[in-house]
Amino acid sequence: MRGTVLHGPGDVRIEERAEPKIVEATDAVIRTVATCVCGSDLWSYRGINDVPKPTPFGHEYVGVVEAVGGEVTAIRPGQFVVGSFYASDNTCPHCRFGYQTSCERKQPVPGCQSELIRVPLADGTLVATPDEPSDELVPSLLACSDVMGTGWFAAVAAEVRPGSTVAVVGDGAVGLSAVLAAREMGAERIIAMSRHETRQSLAREFGATDVVTERGDEGVERIKDLTAGVGADAVLECVGTGESMRQALRSTRPGGNVGFVGVPHGVEIAGPELFWTHVALRGGAAPVRRFLPDLIERVWNGWTDPGRVFDLTLPLSEVAEAYSAMDERRAIKALLQP
Amino acid sequence: MRGTVLHGPGDVRIEERAEPKIVEATDAVIRTVATCVCGSDLWSYRGINDVPKPTPFGHEYVGVVEAVGGEVTAIRPGQFVVGSFYASDNTCPHCRFGYQTSCERKQPVPGCQSELIRVPLADGTLVATPDEPSDELVPSLLACSDVMGTGWFAAVAAEVRPGSTVAVVGDGAVGLSAVLAAREMGAERIIAMSRHETRQSLAREFGATDVVTERGDEGVERIKDLTAGVGADAVLECVGTGESMRQALRSTRPGGNVGFVGVPHGVEIAGPELFWTHVALRGGAAPVRRFLPDLIERVWNGWTDPGRVFDLTLPLSEVAEAYSAMDERRAIKALLQP
Repeated sequence: MRGTVLHGPGDVRIEERAEPKIVEATDAVIRTVATCVCGSDLWSYRGINDVPKPTPFGHEYVGVVEAVGGEVTAIRPGQFVVGSFYASDNTCPHCRFGYQTSCERKQPVPGCQSELIRVPLADGTLVATPDEPSDELVPSLLACSDVMGTGWFAAVAAEVRPGSTVAVVGDGAVGLSAVLAAREMGAERIIAMSRHETRQSLAREFGATDVVTERGDEGVERIKDLTAGVGADAVLECVGTGESMRQALRSTRPGGNVGFVGVPHGVEIAGPELFWTHVALRGGAAPVRRFLPDLIERVWNGWTDPGRVFDLTLPLSEVAEAYSAMDERRAIKALLQP
Repeated sequence: MRGTVLHGPGDVRIEERAEPKIVEATDAVIRTVATCVCGSDLWSYRGINDVPKPTPFGHEYVGVVEAVGGEVTAIRPGQFVVGSFYASDNTCPHCRFGYQTSCERKQPVPGCQSELIRVPLADGTLVATPDEPSDELVPSLLACSDVMGTGWFAAVAAEVRPGSTVAVVGDGAVGLSAVLAAREMGAERIIAMSRHETRQSLAREFGATDVVTERGDEGVERIKDLTAGVGADAVLECVGTGESMRQALRSTRPGGNVGFVGVPHGVEIAGPELFWTHVALRGGAAPVRRFLPDLIERVWNGWTDPGRVFDLTLPLSEVAEAYSAMDERRAIKALLQP
């Protein structure tokens, strides 16, 4: 089968790879219907994360179950499924508290930008849709598998509530999904931080009431201006740099919450800054599995359309162009069809 | 009037000072009935915080109102009042969200280890008791003014709920109060970390179900052992060092909460550690004013007795011995009677 392999910075290729098989009795193998490139893949593509040897890439996927191991009971061949980027048993204490990305048995689901995917712990990782989806629903279901699940967690972690004033740091697919999540949760005011016109426009369609183009101290000032000097109740940090975290912390009102989902690179938080501002922090790798049943229902019923973050669709064979377009910010997010 | 002045490390004296007067129309002046020494006073007494010139000390107090300014309406002369260590207007947006220690007009209430105290923003800072309290109630009311209010905030910040498993880092008066707060909030299991027999014993009386004497990695291991490898739902950090914060973060289960109230000295938190553990953080200078009406009611009705943290009572004239006893851990907390 064909699959994506990252060889080094800027060097991503489609190659013939061995077909994945059932290894554990709890595995499933799925035939990919759609996959995509994640902002976090770019950390490696750009050489910021080291990739010492050729590595199969991708961790977002929807597909049809081909085969299941002998212990899989909740999922069966022929079903259309959405999975999360970490496999989880969904039965350990951490899973039951809703933190499946801290599952005692968690493991990555690697190499998903390919025609076939082996998914470990299938019962705890995959969620089947009620039926075979129409083609139009596929992008939104795929979005649930990572970016929408992650944006949703940012909003949950920051305790967004009906009436909240929310600011979103980051205008990538996760940031835009976070805007949509905040709207779904009833936020009254949603301030998107973006200096990129296409993204601003999608942010507004997703529910942003204000757009702030300034960054750093000026961005913080603008948010203070927009909130009568108080700061936002909830700030959703969807980037993961020291700069974006600082901006998030300083845009939050005392007693407000930062939900952070950008994988941190160079983020250090000074105890006194947290102490003297009363800003609370919750975040991490989004436990997408917790939200999948709810998100799939919202998409299935047409209540929300997170798939609109995909502004580029390519055949899997053109994966190199997909990475390049996202790297150069020509595309927000690229969907790949095997 | 007589008041306490810190001259430098280890040098605390009782001196004749000018009588405080009404300066602003929102001020009150109170005659101190009881005051005390705070663990945080020791940072200066030990020379860790710099004290460049002789400074009036103390910030915990209960007393009887002597005089009020022309704009004070909620408090009147003759009332017995409990105040918090920061004055707040209790009307600004931050106060209304319950973060009075981030009040837009916040200011310290300094020099409280004295016979008379000027309290700014009296209406927003002081809470009167229903009547003149009996002598036995005074220590518990005084405890509400700081340590119990602070321990209570630690438990609120860490989202302690009925049934929670709680660990408390720190066995000073705040840590012990945090144990009591967790019990009041219905925690099922309360693990106190202490290697000091007197404190362990009070912790148990306050509701601790387990005592852990180990520190650092071993302390974390013990808490994991006691929680079937999961970690505590809520960890109350009541010290403020890098070591204690590390211990708190590592003792918490994924998705659990650290409530931190120890003033941070040398605390740096690595973004990736928070991200990959899913531990949430909320803390800061406790907004004691938020909790005062509730805490006073609990004490007034005899439901709880936080004043038991005072194991040394001295006349104000012996303030030097009070500092020394706490510094040498001969006393948990010293109450001073003017």
